[in-house]
Amino acid sequence: MTKTQQVRLAQRPAGLPDADTWNLTTEELPALSTGQILVKVDFISLDPAMRGWLNDVRSYVPPVGLGEVMRALDIATVVESTHPDFAVGDTVSGTFGVAEYAISDGKGVSRVDLSVAPGPTWLGALGMPGMTAYFGLLEVGKLQPGETVVVSAAAGAVGSVVGQIAKAKGANVIGIAGGPEKCRLLTEELGFDAAIDYRNEDVLRRIRELAPKGIDIYFDNVGGEILDAALANLRRGARVVLCGAISAYNDEKLQPGPSRYMSLLVFRASMTGFVVFDYADRYGEAVDQTGRWLAEGTLKSREHVVEGGVARFGETLNLLFTGGNTGKLVLAI
Amino acid sequence: MTKTQQVRLAQRPAGLPDADTWNLTTEELPALSTGQILVKVDFISLDPAMRGWLNDVRSYVPPVGLGEVMRALDIATVVESTHPDFAVGDTVSGTFGVAEYAISDGKGVSRVDLSVAPGPTWLGALGMPGMTAYFGLLEVGKLQPGETVVVSAAAGAVGSVVGQIAKAKGANVIGIAGGPEKCRLLTEELGFDAAIDYRNEDVLRRIRELAPKGIDIYFDNVGGEILDAALANLRRGARVVLCGAISAYNDEKLQPGPSRYMSLLVFRASMTGFVVFDYADRYGEAVDQTGRWLAEGTLKSREHVVEGGVARFGETLNLLFTGGNTGKLVLAI
Repeated sequence: MTKTQQVRLAQRPAGLPDADTWNLTTEELPALSTGQILVKVDFISLDPAMRGWLNDVRSYVPPVGLGEVMRALDIATVVESTHPDFAVGDTVSGTFGVAEYAISDGKGVSRVDLSVAPGPTWLGALGMPGMTAYFGLLEVGKLQPGETVVVSAAAGAVGSVVGQIAKAKGANVIGIAGGPEKCRLLTEELGFDAAIDYRNEDVLRRIRELAPKGIDIYFDNVGGEILDAALANLRRGARVVLCGAISAYNDEKLQPGPSRYMSLLVFRASMTGFVVFDYADRYGEAVDQTGRWLAEGTLKSREHVVEGGVARFGETLNLLFTGGNTGKLVLAI
Repeated sequence: MTKTQQVRLAQRPAGLPDADTWNLTTEELPALSTGQILVKVDFISLDPAMRGWLNDVRSYVPPVGLGEVMRALDIATVVESTHPDFAVGDTVSGTFGVAEYAISDGKGVSRVDLSVAPGPTWLGALGMPGMTAYFGLLEVGKLQPGETVVVSAAAGAVGSVVGQIAKAKGANVIGIAGGPEKCRLLTEELGFDAAIDYRNEDVLRRIRELAPKGIDIYFDNVGGEILDAALANLRRGARVVLCGAISAYNDEKLQPGPSRYMSLLVFRASMTGFVVFDYADRYGEAVDQTGRWLAEGTLKSREHVVEGGVARFGETLNLLFTGGNTGKLVLAI
């Protein structure tokens, strides 16, 4: 019998999740049936989308139910197996939740190759954020060489990869991030052409200065005023890629939408939403390409790994909403 | 010498245009130079877009300047010509402005065939509103047979044609309009499958009832709450075609945008703006097809013709913003 700690949804938060949102439980896992694996979780992915899963509303995935183990993607090690495809010692990726150990029937579980990159990178550039950046920029945004790309939350897990792929593809890239340290990271380490510090600069005016001919692609992770600042600076035929709206995820009421949405008409532009899961059958292609970029040094993966196990899940998650992380936020177990 | 009355922009309106906005002037037109035509205006087109042209902001066309004759598209008769392409007696369409007579060098002027349809129809189904409906629905919206189309301002010049083309192409069509009379027109005369009276019904709930599987195309002429109601009812892969936002054209401040824009993400949907002028090289195709639909009775053109000459321009224009017109609003001279 394996004992495991788990974080369960105790109550749906109004606003930012707090201690009352979560319930730390301990459970004894049963013995494996045929065709199952027991995994020991090594790294838990913390994602802005998690906040949406806590709301009892129709979305692209069902909400996490009250009392259920919080949904999360993990990197884990197989410690017991009755499943033909997985052996003890395999490192795997799967939605095992916020837990130390979990049992899985292997559905949606894939093996990860630690010789390509360490575990946290498989939750970052080679994981969902990387896939999101890749398909959002290239398939939804249809980036062409020489275009100007602006990305918000540019020091985050998705944004940092968006900007670097755009550079690899010959674009002019401007990142928007909070604070001078993140902005320095973008231009000095990640190769962005320019960075805008939304905490200390007038974003609308700065975009206009840095991209006087307008933006071809705006990759939006944040919504709110920054989305409006981008809409005011589009170029004819621009594509706004809607990836997220982290500025609003903890709002209790529906906030006003982008005032300047009619810029889409003036500039014959589009705003398109996507969900990365729709590209699941092409993840292999993106992982191969991203792996090559990592190996060449064209792309640098940034992870922000917090130590401390599942008990620190709640406080660590909130770093996403306070701008406390740089790169992919991961909890090490 | 030909004397003509003209309506000029006296001052930029804050909110709804009023008597102070316009200046009725009388001018003697000079004799024609070589390569010109003198036209007598028969019908003046009144368009929601005119309100935008009064604001001193960057848009898809420059604003009308203070003191200039108000820009308008007209149907007119050539009364003098030194231009090789136009003869006295020709009926033509061109941007001659709000005037009784005008001189033109023939640029952007095209002959219209009154045997196909009368003058006002050449400002409606066979004019800019018809072109806007045709290219917006078929090219921007990429309508497929069997899809569900919702159109706002459905009893207006563009909306009434959008709905009828959608029906001709095998769609399920729901129109949104103000008041029971307009709604009756949609379902009883124009062949819409259903109509929603936004003045007396809960639009969001009614769309959900009438299109329980969601909307494939929302053709938006109005913006505001109705756009949000549509966004709440999209179907996966939906296209929102941004044609106008008449609800906001007289607002002095930028209004909040669509709160539910993140529905675009949930439903993998897009919102795309367009300007009909971009399709100018394909107007011929659309006029031919629309002419056939008119001849067959597949499409009915509705025009709302106000008599009274240029002096009534200001009050007539405002009918557009108070819901006072049904079909294409035209001023007869």
